[in-house]
Amino acid sequence: MSGSTAIVGSGLIGRAWAIAFARAGWTVRLWDPVETAPAEAVDTIAGLLSDLAANDMLRGQDASRVLGRIAPAPNLAAALEGADWVQENAPEKLEIKRALWAEMEPLAGADTILASSTSAIVPSLFTEGLAGRHRCLTAHPINPPYLVPATELVPAPWTSAETMEKAESVMRAIGQAPIVMRKEIDGFVMNRMQGALLEEAFRLVADGVCGAEDVDVGIREGLALRWAFMGPFETIDLNAPGGVRDYAERYQGLYEGIFPSMQRRVDWAGPVMETIEGERRARLSETELQERQRWRDRHLMALLRHKARARDDIGE
Amino acid sequence: MSGSTAIVGSGLIGRAWAIAFARAGWTVRLWDPVETAPAEAVDTIAGLLSDLAANDMLRGQDASRVLGRIAPAPNLAAALEGADWVQENAPEKLEIKRALWAEMEPLAGADTILASSTSAIVPSLFTEGLAGRHRCLTAHPINPPYLVPATELVPAPWTSAETMEKAESVMRAIGQAPIVMRKEIDGFVMNRMQGALLEEAFRLVADGVCGAEDVDVGIREGLALRWAFMGPFETIDLNAPGGVRDYAERYQGLYEGIFPSMQRRVDWAGPVMETIEGERRARLSETELQERQRWRDRHLMALLRHKARARDDIGE
Repeated sequence: MSGSTAIVGSGLIGRAWAIAFARAGWTVRLWDPVETAPAEAVDTIAGLLSDLAANDMLRGQDASRVLGRIAPAPNLAAALEGADWVQENAPEKLEIKRALWAEMEPLAGADTILASSTSAIVPSLFTEGLAGRHRCLTAHPINPPYLVPATELVPAPWTSAETMEKAESVMRAIGQAPIVMRKEIDGFVMNRMQGALLEEAFRLVADGVCGAEDVDVGIREGLALRWAFMGPFETIDLNAPGGVRDYAERYQGLYEGIFPSMQRRVDWAGPVMETIEGERRARLSETELQERQRWRDRHLMALLRHKARARDDIGE
Repeated sequence: MSGSTAIVGSGLIGRAWAIAFARAGWTVRLWDPVETAPAEAVDTIAGLLSDLAANDMLRGQDASRVLGRIAPAPNLAAALEGADWVQENAPEKLEIKRALWAEMEPLAGADTILASSTSAIVPSLFTEGLAGRHRCLTAHPINPPYLVPATELVPAPWTSAETMEKAESVMRAIGQAPIVMRKEIDGFVMNRMQGALLEEAFRLVADGVCGAEDVDVGIREGLALRWAFMGPFETIDLNAPGGVRDYAERYQGLYEGIFPSMQRRVDWAGPVMETIEGERRARLSETELQERQRWRDRHLMALLRHKARARDDIGE
C-alpha cells in the first residue's frame, strides 16, 4: 500500500514523518505556517537521507529517489489536496491545535485520515467540534519515527473503528509498529510506562539507595536486554514454568509488598537533580550532549539492523 | 584477578554462577545438601558450556577447559576451604538461609566474601548474628548471570565498605556489571523498576486501554531500544537540549499529572489475567513455552554479541 500524505508543520517531527512515509514509497507534501519552513525542511531531509542511506536504512533505495517523493506545498489546501493521510505536527498548545484542526479538517477529502503527532494532548480535545471527527486520531511516534517503529494510535471517543483499522494498516505499510489503543488516556501507553519506571528511578536515587548510573546499568545490562526483543509481558510469560499466570501467582507477593513504597513522588527538579545532573555531567559534559545524540542514533541504527538480522537468523 | 569460589546450592542459579566464575578463570567447588546434586550439576554445566562455546560466549576458550575448573566438593567445609568468594543459592526461605549461613560463615576464611543470590530477602535478615557479618552481602543476578551482566550488590547495615569494594572488583573481573547499592531495600533496584513498569502495564490492560501485545510492542519496538544500550537516565539526558535537568523541567508536568492514576493496584492474577493469558496463549501455546525459552536465550546471546561489536565499532 502506498499513497500520499500531507505533513502539516515541518519541524523536527514533521520532517521525520516525511522520511518515514517517503521511504515507503508515499508522496509527501510539506506545509508549515512559516512560509520558508517547508523548503528548509526539504534541505534538512536531504542531509538526513544521506546519513540513512549510508547506514542502510532506506530499504536499498538511493537517497535521491526517496527525496524525489517529497515537496513543499504552497498552502495548506494544496498540501491536503488528494492526501490519503494528514499528519499534524504543530506545537503542543491546545489553542493552536484547535484552530489548526478547525481549518484543516474541512480541507481533507471524505476518506482522508487525519492524525496528530501530539504526545501531550488527548485527541478529543481538538477534534470534538469537527464534522469529520470520526476520521481523526492521534498517531504519536517516538522520535524519530524513521528509526523507532513503535507508534501509538489513540482514538477519541468518536473515532470510527474503520478509521482505526485503516490507520493500523497505513502504519504497518510504512514499517511502523502500531500500538492500537482502545481509548484515550493522558500519557498514552509509552509515556505512562516510561513515567512509572522513571518515578521509581528518581525515588531510588533520592533515597540514597543507589546512583543514577546504577539505575542505568540495571536497565541497559539487565532488564532491557530482554525487553528489547520481547517486551515485559512475554518476558514474564517465559520466567515461570507455567507461563504468565504462574509468574503472577508465584511472584505477585513481592511486587505487592513494595507497591506501598511507590506512592510517594519525588520532585525530579528538586535536590535529587543535583545528584543526577552531577553524575551525568561528570560522565558527559554539556558541550558533548549533541555529539552523544549522534552516538545514540548510530547505536540505535545498529541495534535495528541487528534485530532485523536476528529475526532472519533465529526467527520471530 | 582470579581466585576460587564455592557454590553453595547447585541448582539452576548455582550452576549458572559456576559457569560465570569458571569462564573467567576461577576455580569452582560445588556443594549441595542433596549429595548427588553437585555431580549432576557438573553434567548439566557440561551441556550448557557446549551451547555457549557454539555461540562464542566463552571468551575463545574450549568448553572442556572451562569445565576443567569446576568440581564437586564432598562437603560444605571442603567447598569453602581456601575460597575467596562464596555464592549461596539456597531456596528463598528465611529459616533455610539463616541455618545455612550460621553453619557456613564460620567455615570461611577471614578474608573470604560471602554472597547470597537471593532476590527476595534483604541480607540483614540472615547475617545479623554472624561473627563475620561485615564480609557478607547479597549478590543478586538476573538469571542466567553468564548471559546477563547486571548484578545487584546489596549491603546489610554492617557490611563493610571494603567488602563492597572488593565485591565490586570481583564482579567486574568475571565480567558482571555491578549495581552497587548503598543500603538494602525490598525488591532491590531491578525488581523495583520492573515492578513499577509491570504495575502500569497490568493497569493499562485491566482498564481496557490496550492489549498485552500492545504493551510489549511499546517496549520492544519503542522504549527498550534505547534503554538496551543507554538506560533511562542517559535516555532523558539526551532528550532535551540542556540535558537531564532541562528534561525534568520541560516534561515533569506530564508525569506529575498521570502519577495520581498510578496509585491503584490491579490484582495480577485476577480478571485481567484472563485477557493477558488469553492473548499470550493465542500467540504461544503452553507446550511451546520451553522451546520459546531457548529462542529467548539465542536472541539474548545474539544481542550481547551485537552490543560488544557495536561498542568496538561505534564506541562507548
